[in-house]
Amino acid sequence: MKQQFESLNCDERKKALDVFEAIKNRRSVRAFTDEPVSDTKIRKLIDAARRAPSAGNIQPWEFVIIRGQEVKRELCKVAGNQNFIEEAPVVIVVCANTLRSEHGYGSRGVTLYCLQDTAAATQNMLLAAQAMGLATCWVGAFSEEEVIKVLNIPKSIRPVAIIPVGHPARKPKIRLRRPLNEIIHHEIFGRK
Amino acid sequence: MKQQFESLNCDERKKALDVFEAIKNRRSVRAFTDEPVSDTKIRKLIDAARRAPSAGNIQPWEFVIIRGQEVKRELCKVAGNQNFIEEAPVVIVVCANTLRSEHGYGSRGVTLYCLQDTAAATQNMLLAAQAMGLATCWVGAFSEEEVIKVLNIPKSIRPVAIIPVGHPARKPKIRLRRPLNEIIHHEIFGRK
Repeated sequence: MKQQFESLNCDERKKALDVFEAIKNRRSVRAFTDEPVSDTKIRKLIDAARRAPSAGNIQPWEFVIIRGQEVKRELCKVAGNQNFIEEAPVVIVVCANTLRSEHGYGSRGVTLYCLQDTAAATQNMLLAAQAMGLATCWVGAFSEEEVIKVLNIPKSIRPVAIIPVGHPARKPKIRLRRPLNEIIHHEIFGRK
Repeated sequence: MKQQFESLNCDERKKALDVFEAIKNRRSVRAFTDEPVSDTKIRKLIDAARRAPSAGNIQPWEFVIIRGQEVKRELCKVAGNQNFIEEAPVVIVVCANTLRSEHGYGSRGVTLYCLQDTAAATQNMLLAAQAMGLATCWVGAFSEEEVIKVLNIPKSIRPVAIIPVGHPARKPKIRLRRPLNEIIHHEIFGRK
């Protein structure tokens, strides 16, 4: 680790380590304690989310913050009964505002950019949570149609992720990653 | 800022600040100096990328690292002649391995998860770069078909982002963000 940062000064190295530490230590947590999460912290997460880059700085994101038990229960149901969604003190539903992206970029905006932009925003949120000692899980398996009904989401807004936020009740598992040499390609992808 | 982290201990607060600082200070940089970027640093960026969460931990990402001037020039051409792509000492093309996602999740894997997963990985990379003093720009406007030809990318692999990496030649502009109160919705999206 040390060697990889040798050309950075002390301050830069410390920051790089902290950012990398958050990136490395973030885990999907699927069990939460009752400990509440303040509105201030949730706003901080959304503030981190909106700092993400977006195509043309269009910022095609909307965030629904849910604390009510009944709505959380409904979300849990339409996400294949993943019970930890209901357990979390706060659930954030990340939505893509496809209209904003369509205005800027047509169909590539709708089918690509607004999904990438909201995913980058979500990742910022997960890392900020990790750094703040909060636990999260990126849930993608749900019926969009049903979430739209539950949250009264208007046309042209698409729910793209459900993020339960809380304090971890269990130590999450370490998941292995594909080796670097398998995912890195030099100059071209295949042999020409 | 202080107030927002008051329930964290000193060490946690410091980390949260560094992570948030990287998130906040990252900018799209479109002018690079000649200063080279070592392979070690590039591997560190890819290592950060692969730590991203992915649906079912499928990790549908591949990274092509380009240093050759000729390939960079070709990429620049098929990305609407955005000249800074050619200027950067290293260009990373992020690809989505749609086959991996399709195996796990069918069409939702191809049209949603593998785009989100690679976007989260890309965002990790941009933040790690920021923390290491490197500059990047997330380029999404390019002909996928042409990039596939230039890099000899096989079927079922889709180039989703071009990321030039280098040292900034100019101070990048600050881009405003939509206000929190516009993007935050409570309990439901609209009025029921």
